[in-house]
Amino acid sequence: MKYVKLERDGGSVWGVLQGDLVRTLAAPPFDGICYDGKSLPLADCRLMAPCAPTKIVCVGKNYYDHAVEMGDGVPERPILFLKAPNTLNRPEGEVHAPAFVGRLDYEGELAFVIRKQAKDVKAEEYARYILGYTCLNDVTARDVQKSDGQWTRGKSMDGFAPVGPLVTDEVDPSALELETRLNGTVVQSGNTSQFMTRIPELLAFITASMTLEPGDVVTTGTPAGIGAMKPGDTVEVAIQGIGVLRSHVV
Amino acid sequence: MKYVKLERDGGSVWGVLQGDLVRTLAAPPFDGICYDGKSLPLADCRLMAPCAPTKIVCVGKNYYDHAVEMGDGVPERPILFLKAPNTLNRPEGEVHAPAFVGRLDYEGELAFVIRKQAKDVKAEEYARYILGYTCLNDVTARDVQKSDGQWTRGKSMDGFAPVGPLVTDEVDPSALELETRLNGTVVQSGNTSQFMTRIPELLAFITASMTLEPGDVVTTGTPAGIGAMKPGDTVEVAIQGIGVLRSHVV
Repeated sequence: MKYVKLERDGGSVWGVLQGDLVRTLAAPPFDGICYDGKSLPLADCRLMAPCAPTKIVCVGKNYYDHAVEMGDGVPERPILFLKAPNTLNRPEGEVHAPAFVGRLDYEGELAFVIRKQAKDVKAEEYARYILGYTCLNDVTARDVQKSDGQWTRGKSMDGFAPVGPLVTDEVDPSALELETRLNGTVVQSGNTSQFMTRIPELLAFITASMTLEPGDVVTTGTPAGIGAMKPGDTVEVAIQGIGVLRSHVV
Repeated sequence: MKYVKLERDGGSVWGVLQGDLVRTLAAPPFDGICYDGKSLPLADCRLMAPCAPTKIVCVGKNYYDHAVEMGDGVPERPILFLKAPNTLNRPEGEVHAPAFVGRLDYEGELAFVIRKQAKDVKAEEYARYILGYTCLNDVTARDVQKSDGQWTRGKSMDGFAPVGPLVTDEVDPSALELETRLNGTVVQSGNTSQFMTRIPELLAFITASMTLEPGDVVTTGTPAGIGAMKPGDTVEVAIQGIGVLRSHVV
């Protein structure tokens, strides 16, 4: 199933993508699928971030090559941080940094959306808690992240988490090609098979401490190749079997 | 005005405390006060955390003496971190750490609740964005905080943010006595006049990066004297003019 979230009447509605058509839902898809009887062409939809997070849980340095490029060691266990809901940004959305930010970076990532409240999840039961997989750009004010030491401020500015364009349960997350492209040029290239902590174990690790709620987002870290963006740039996170998440830096 | 939030019919309702009586509200108090015509004795109420956060924004090391006791330098600017909404805990609530936590600490703090959406707030206009002031215990798995480096996991476990018992706009936050008591013994004692970054400037600093929403919580850091709790302990955060936030470690 491929899920999307659309803008409608100043609010939002979830839908299921079938070919080029979106069949809209009477309620969010977390408790099952209930169509509302309407459908519309995807091309007529304004997509929103396909999630409803009370929190976005992120993991730092989950690809070995990125841990090495950051230059301060490879962690023994996942290093968690949060992006607050004010960071959410839509597909084709505008990314903007406050004037005091000196360097604004992309970080292309595979993310997943929680379907069912999750606490103390056993790794082997991970799939039942996940609605599906999507693309996320963990936009980062790199200079702020480095000078603060704690990553929160540099990563939780408004609009710093583009998510989308859709959420799908039709991929195997253990071996997906991921690319980030800056103005069409590939700048990051990885495969989720390179994860240091894989999704089942990551979900077990997080939920040993925190209850995840339906609509929450977990993102899985970025491969090597991080770099800066500037106003006028277009950045894309493309993941095999999911699609392309495009953002415009302004 | 003194605001409380009560459990009712499996959900919650806001109220205004007048003497020993709670007059309940038809809607949250962010857009004004609309009584629903009912009232009940405070003693009959089960209080909940008096907030509705999409995020809890915290500042590390905002008292000089605590920055010194933590031993790794005094920050040049506020160091922000987040506690996710899963951390919320009620007055008289139970605090429990997962079995893998080696040291569980209290941190008594003055917090404030946002009334009005806030972005790029000017320091001198801070008051219009604040519903009022409350007590918060920034419960911390100290060993996890230190070994992770990033503070998120050690501070965002379920129930690690008791808040309450009430929110009041009847105090001057610039000089309030704060005490934390462990089993009746005073273990932290400070005054908000010792803040390195005061509330107007803190709100301006945060909202230069992040939009705050009605019901969000900002907490202002803890004074020296942090220490460990164990099951069976009772911990209280008492702030002049606000009240006593009591939690039970289990």
